[in-house]
Amino acid sequence: MIDTSMSSALSLTLLCRDTNSHARVTQITTPHGVMDTPSFMPVGTQGTVKTLTPRDLKEAGAEMILSNAYHLYIRPGVEVIRSLGGLHKFMGWDGPILTDSGGFQVFSLAKLRTITDEGATFSSHFDGKEHFLTPESVVKIQEDLGSDIAMVFDECSAYPADASVLRRAMERTLLWSARAKRAHKKENQALFGIVQGGCDFALRKESLARTVEIGFPGYALGGLSVGEPKEHMNEVLQAITPLVPENAPRYLMGIGTPLDFLEAVSAGIDMFDCVTPTRYGRNGTAFTHQGMLVVRNAIYTEAKGPVDVKCDCYTCQNFDRGYIRHLLNANEILGHHLLSYHNVYFFISLMKQIRSAIQKGEFLSFRKQFEIEYNAGSR
Amino acid sequence: MIDTSMSSALSLTLLCRDTNSHARVTQITTPHGVMDTPSFMPVGTQGTVKTLTPRDLKEAGAEMILSNAYHLYIRPGVEVIRSLGGLHKFMGWDGPILTDSGGFQVFSLAKLRTITDEGATFSSHFDGKEHFLTPESVVKIQEDLGSDIAMVFDECSAYPADASVLRRAMERTLLWSARAKRAHKKENQALFGIVQGGCDFALRKESLARTVEIGFPGYALGGLSVGEPKEHMNEVLQAITPLVPENAPRYLMGIGTPLDFLEAVSAGIDMFDCVTPTRYGRNGTAFTHQGMLVVRNAIYTEAKGPVDVKCDCYTCQNFDRGYIRHLLNANEILGHHLLSYHNVYFFISLMKQIRSAIQKGEFLSFRKQFEIEYNAGSR
Repeated sequence: MIDTSMSSALSLTLLCRDTNSHARVTQITTPHGVMDTPSFMPVGTQGTVKTLTPRDLKEAGAEMILSNAYHLYIRPGVEVIRSLGGLHKFMGWDGPILTDSGGFQVFSLAKLRTITDEGATFSSHFDGKEHFLTPESVVKIQEDLGSDIAMVFDECSAYPADASVLRRAMERTLLWSARAKRAHKKENQALFGIVQGGCDFALRKESLARTVEIGFPGYALGGLSVGEPKEHMNEVLQAITPLVPENAPRYLMGIGTPLDFLEAVSAGIDMFDCVTPTRYGRNGTAFTHQGMLVVRNAIYTEAKGPVDVKCDCYTCQNFDRGYIRHLLNANEILGHHLLSYHNVYFFISLMKQIRSAIQKGEFLSFRKQFEIEYNAGSR
Repeated sequence: MIDTSMSSALSLTLLCRDTNSHARVTQITTPHGVMDTPSFMPVGTQGTVKTLTPRDLKEAGAEMILSNAYHLYIRPGVEVIRSLGGLHKFMGWDGPILTDSGGFQVFSLAKLRTITDEGATFSSHFDGKEHFLTPESVVKIQEDLGSDIAMVFDECSAYPADASVLRRAMERTLLWSARAKRAHKKENQALFGIVQGGCDFALRKESLARTVEIGFPGYALGGLSVGEPKEHMNEVLQAITPLVPENAPRYLMGIGTPLDFLEAVSAGIDMFDCVTPTRYGRNGTAFTHQGMLVVRNAIYTEAKGPVDVKCDCYTCQNFDRGYIRHLLNANEILGHHLLSYHNVYFFISLMKQIRSAIQKGEFLSFRKQFEIEYNAGSR
């Protein structure tokens, strides 16, 4: 029996379907409020979206934000956050929060020691201390954090990977997903499943079907953008996303850039998260309607005008490129802040424009227009 | 003839005098608006008050801010700022700005090569490049920056210094002050004189009298808090400040902490600037009504409650000490921002409370009460 009923903690209202693609507009209701999709979730890895206050995030239009169970478990520790009233209270964010399970971090950031069906033993990236996590303990961590959406603990494979490695990771993720679902008790929290299988269509389809069989109120596509050619990722997205039960949110983990969003939305993805806007912002690069702008470059030393003439964010309304270039050049934190703010604002605004275009039946023409301008300006 | 007339760019209205001390409340009008004194000016050394946006500063109650001609001259260069519309436009601050002349920086930060009556040759702290500055060129730099208040180029002496060294620095500062005044042409900018003389009362008095004879619309006390015992600084403040013409603003340069402010206000000082709130903020220390709080300390790991229960700033209204401690511990910029914001807010709020106390005739009792609570809580 395929159980695709929504959890009591989450419901999805399908507002609009694009007739020329799989793009759609939905509203997802969580214990801490509503999120309109397609949506971009800013990433607050360590319990803060880097350089931004919660009020900055509200102003930028953020509805749901993401944080990482792995990082918070390592530092400051779940007990600290619990004793301070849970993750929402801890970070001063009263809107919805999704916590990533840490699967990806254990396999990419920490030093993995051993992995068995029971769980993963690893040394933390922070102090090398050894930890052991199981699907059940990762559920418990996220229940204690109190996020609105928790993710199952999954095994990620690198790219490229042998078919046998991909299958083993997929099988283990399925095993862990079932155990996570059994362990999950928190009523005001939705637990999402994660589809693995690399770029192997058959494996992805099997992973999806068997994850749906276990039954979750939402599904994520994991293990993408790990080194595979972008065409492969897009082919997987187009082939798999439309097969996800339509009353469940579809979440593409850890991706990406504006052009990625347009492609994935056309495949039917609802939710996105990525560190790109804040990471690029701190490194001195802005995302704009005219492509990526390396504001740090010396050619902008005396440049008048905003980072993006089409943007109405605080940064673009108040500061010349030359000033921001000076801040970056002088290692002033304000430069990192102003660009991070702009980038987050830009990503969220793009999602608003995408939703509006879908609802007007103009998604494909919007996409085409956006891509032309973005690609023409990129340098 | 003693010329104490106000410049066309600046006027002072004396609103209230304390009857038990030299404390006073004034309103200083500049081309970019009014400042109520006693006042604390946040320091934006490189054209940004570190980690804070202009709107943060407005919200914290800042009226005038300070920036450094020396730093801006070195980087990004005066021409860049001029081509971007002047310092106000450059940094997005439409209120009054005071620029320090760079005298102190040339003698403390840069590597001084030679100093003659003509000017100072030094290697920049940034790239070692050699520069030559004169009283006239420093006036020109500040005219080009377009600040509301400019400072004369002065020679600072270290502490301790021989009487002959102190006198030579004082004489040179007087010589340079007269030349700066002659060179200064910008009508919508006030040029302040700087009184030197170390902790030698006779020298300070002579410096003041002769600076007043040259005639400026405002006077600063320079060369204090350079290593001398605090009692000596306070004695100089009490002896010299009341001798400054009362229709001119009195500015104590580069100082200090809440207790310093109370002492200096009682001597009649109107204007303060210091990097303490932002520097301590970035280092994880908060100024509070209960003294200094090292929020970075591990004892605050699970600490509930705000940094300062008596503070109504954004930081104190929204975040527990434990969260801010986590941010600092995890090297998150938001921690530096939230504490810098609180500290600046706290300093400015203290000045508001001081003005209110003076106007109610309660300055001495306010001071006593503040000091008791502050000293009892300091740890």
